[in-house]
Amino acid sequence: MRAIFIAVGSELLDHDKIDTNSLYIARKLGEKGILIDMKMVVGDNRDNLSWTIKNACKRSQLVIVSGGLGPTEDDITRESAADALKLKLVFNDDIVADIEEMFRVRGIDMPQINKRQAFVLDGAEVLSNSAGTAPGQYFDDGKVRLLLLPGPPKEMIPIFDKILEEKISPLSNFHIYKRILKFGGITESEADSMISGIYRRYKNPITTILASPGLIEVHLLGRAKKDIEEIKELTDQVAEDIREKIGEYLITEEDVRIEELIIREMTRLGLSLSVAESCTGGGLGNVLTNVPGSSEVFLGGVIPYSNELKTGILDVKEETLKKHGAVSKHAAKEMAENVRKLTGSDIGVSITGIAGPGGGTSKKPVGLVFMHMSTPEKETGEYRIFPGDREVVKIRTINYCLNMIFKYLKHDKV
Amino acid sequence: MRAIFIAVGSELLDHDKIDTNSLYIARKLGEKGILIDMKMVVGDNRDNLSWTIKNACKRSQLVIVSGGLGPTEDDITRESAADALKLKLVFNDDIVADIEEMFRVRGIDMPQINKRQAFVLDGAEVLSNSAGTAPGQYFDDGKVRLLLLPGPPKEMIPIFDKILEEKISPLSNFHIYKRILKFGGITESEADSMISGIYRRYKNPITTILASPGLIEVHLLGRAKKDIEEIKELTDQVAEDIREKIGEYLITEEDVRIEELIIREMTRLGLSLSVAESCTGGGLGNVLTNVPGSSEVFLGGVIPYSNELKTGILDVKEETLKKHGAVSKHAAKEMAENVRKLTGSDIGVSITGIAGPGGGTSKKPVGLVFMHMSTPEKETGEYRIFPGDREVVKIRTINYCLNMIFKYLKHDKV
Repeated sequence: MRAIFIAVGSELLDHDKIDTNSLYIARKLGEKGILIDMKMVVGDNRDNLSWTIKNACKRSQLVIVSGGLGPTEDDITRESAADALKLKLVFNDDIVADIEEMFRVRGIDMPQINKRQAFVLDGAEVLSNSAGTAPGQYFDDGKVRLLLLPGPPKEMIPIFDKILEEKISPLSNFHIYKRILKFGGITESEADSMISGIYRRYKNPITTILASPGLIEVHLLGRAKKDIEEIKELTDQVAEDIREKIGEYLITEEDVRIEELIIREMTRLGLSLSVAESCTGGGLGNVLTNVPGSSEVFLGGVIPYSNELKTGILDVKEETLKKHGAVSKHAAKEMAENVRKLTGSDIGVSITGIAGPGGGTSKKPVGLVFMHMSTPEKETGEYRIFPGDREVVKIRTINYCLNMIFKYLKHDKV
Repeated sequence: MRAIFIAVGSELLDHDKIDTNSLYIARKLGEKGILIDMKMVVGDNRDNLSWTIKNACKRSQLVIVSGGLGPTEDDITRESAADALKLKLVFNDDIVADIEEMFRVRGIDMPQINKRQAFVLDGAEVLSNSAGTAPGQYFDDGKVRLLLLPGPPKEMIPIFDKILEEKISPLSNFHIYKRILKFGGITESEADSMISGIYRRYKNPITTILASPGLIEVHLLGRAKKDIEEIKELTDQVAEDIREKIGEYLITEEDVRIEELIIREMTRLGLSLSVAESCTGGGLGNVLTNVPGSSEVFLGGVIPYSNELKTGILDVKEETLKKHGAVSKHAAKEMAENVRKLTGSDIGVSITGIAGPGGGTSKKPVGLVFMHMSTPEKETGEYRIFPGDREVVKIRTINYCLNMIFKYLKHDKV
């Protein structure tokens, strides 16, 4: 099956915003053997959008629209889809009740304008939205398949994932076999130069390397119309060959984030963690506490951004800062040890560095970050000079620390 | 004049690459008063691309295509454009001579395959490419205006800039005037129900509302054929009317992030800030420290995720937690006051809440967050029940706090 994706929103036609929902949708559809033929971006213009939806439905078996389902007058996806398919919009009382309830728990009366979100294409299934007021809609009359999704990724993704599994995936006549390998502590180009000789020999499975600062994912996607077994075997072989080359950097073959693995492993082992974050300003704690259940493991910590907090709350010696500076392995070690003592955690992780753009010197350049992990078994101090701007240096640091914690759990604790 | 942009290339339909040429082109066209109505991304498929070009030319006065002008078989833009406009492709000897010369200086014979790049739409102007072998083409018969550009930005930009100045800009009879207003502490639907009566009266300026959890941007875009002054005045009037309605929620009319404004204002005022973040786990500190120069203002703070850290480092009274719970206005107040004392900052901000998905009760549901700001002038305690999943609740909380800090700086400090 092939699909067309339409992103709605005048802001997506401007010079500073771009649709990225299509990246997520392309990946998830690809895993089901469904390819995107075309993408369109249309502004908040009913005539343009209804024309686009109408023609997309003529040219493709599946049309996915994201955006334009909000409550305001310039949210015109519902009306445009109705125009395109010559369908009525039906008012749905259940949706209004849901939205009213959502406002009620927040102690607010529902603005009348939100009633616009209760209009549904005649015959479409309502796809409930747990993260916002705009429900999705899925219309399938056997000829046309049209999926309307809200624009914000946090709302779009859960709705899309659910309908993909329940309704769209069964329509695909391709079988898919997927392997994911996640690596840390190796750059994209290092990894690629070591494994490209393996995967470039094959067009099937398709190999994709996704890199975020400090973490790399290798996706292998095998596709077959009938018998998946043969391509499955080949995909597994490619995965094995890749593991053989860079297995020492392997984090997981599960499709979970490294912070989830850490929380899960630490919960299993009954361990606790605290942080002392200077240049990341709380970013590591933020990532760890994105994981449900992290309160079982993560005690919290200190953000000693100023030197006064380093020597104050964290009790780093004045002398250490004077002699080695706040950005030094000595300061990092004391920070990690002291936050561990202060909180009574099993593991203490510290970060101190120069995120930039200012503050660098020839001896301590921008991007220099010292990280330290204090545990019952051992002390681990590391430093790196990370490339990139301020935010990228912070993200690389956070990912590096996650990898450091994970490696400890894997090698020293299992 | 209005335009449609088409990006060509199967790789742009995958999950890891995205067209960005349109951002550059949108900005440059916008400066000339030309707006993009739609963007399309089409793979290397002649049928799909010729259909797209044909329909784009029907719907728009200017169609710009980038990509698909290379020498290989899957570069199908020339043929697709010829199909779409029912034009012949004419072989152009001068182009071949140019390409041969380009190879000659590199000491290589031109591969025969590059001759494909010498075919030009009958009647089109050849746009020479100093950075690569693929020339651009510009076709204008008074009805259809079609611009074909190479895909790589290094090649695309010089060709586009030149033709924009020489041929396209003179066709535009529009001038542009833009205003941006950013609001916080009000939902999209609340804002819209209060201001839609103002902006809906006008098709010019065009009003767009962009919402992220807890923050809203209103963009006003005025366009005029000759004299911009009149529409500028009207756009300013609409902005004023919107300010009059929801001015109390206004953050800024600058195109900067609220955290940048906070750091800038606090630096100017010589104020310092500390945080005590429970359920956000360091997320507020993370956002603040994304701003260069934040170390002038942000001292750091505590992440008292566990109750032991709340009563320990932060010295919240055991009795407060016992009587009111860790998620309470009383705990939030002590946390903010104590982090302010502990760090010696002018402002202390605290956060304690239930991010979910677990931990909610009927009296204290998931999403309930208490926030407190302690300053020399006053104590501000607020609570909200934020909708959304764990990460969304955290982001809404962070944005709410940023807004709380900003309001204080604006109203109590100026």
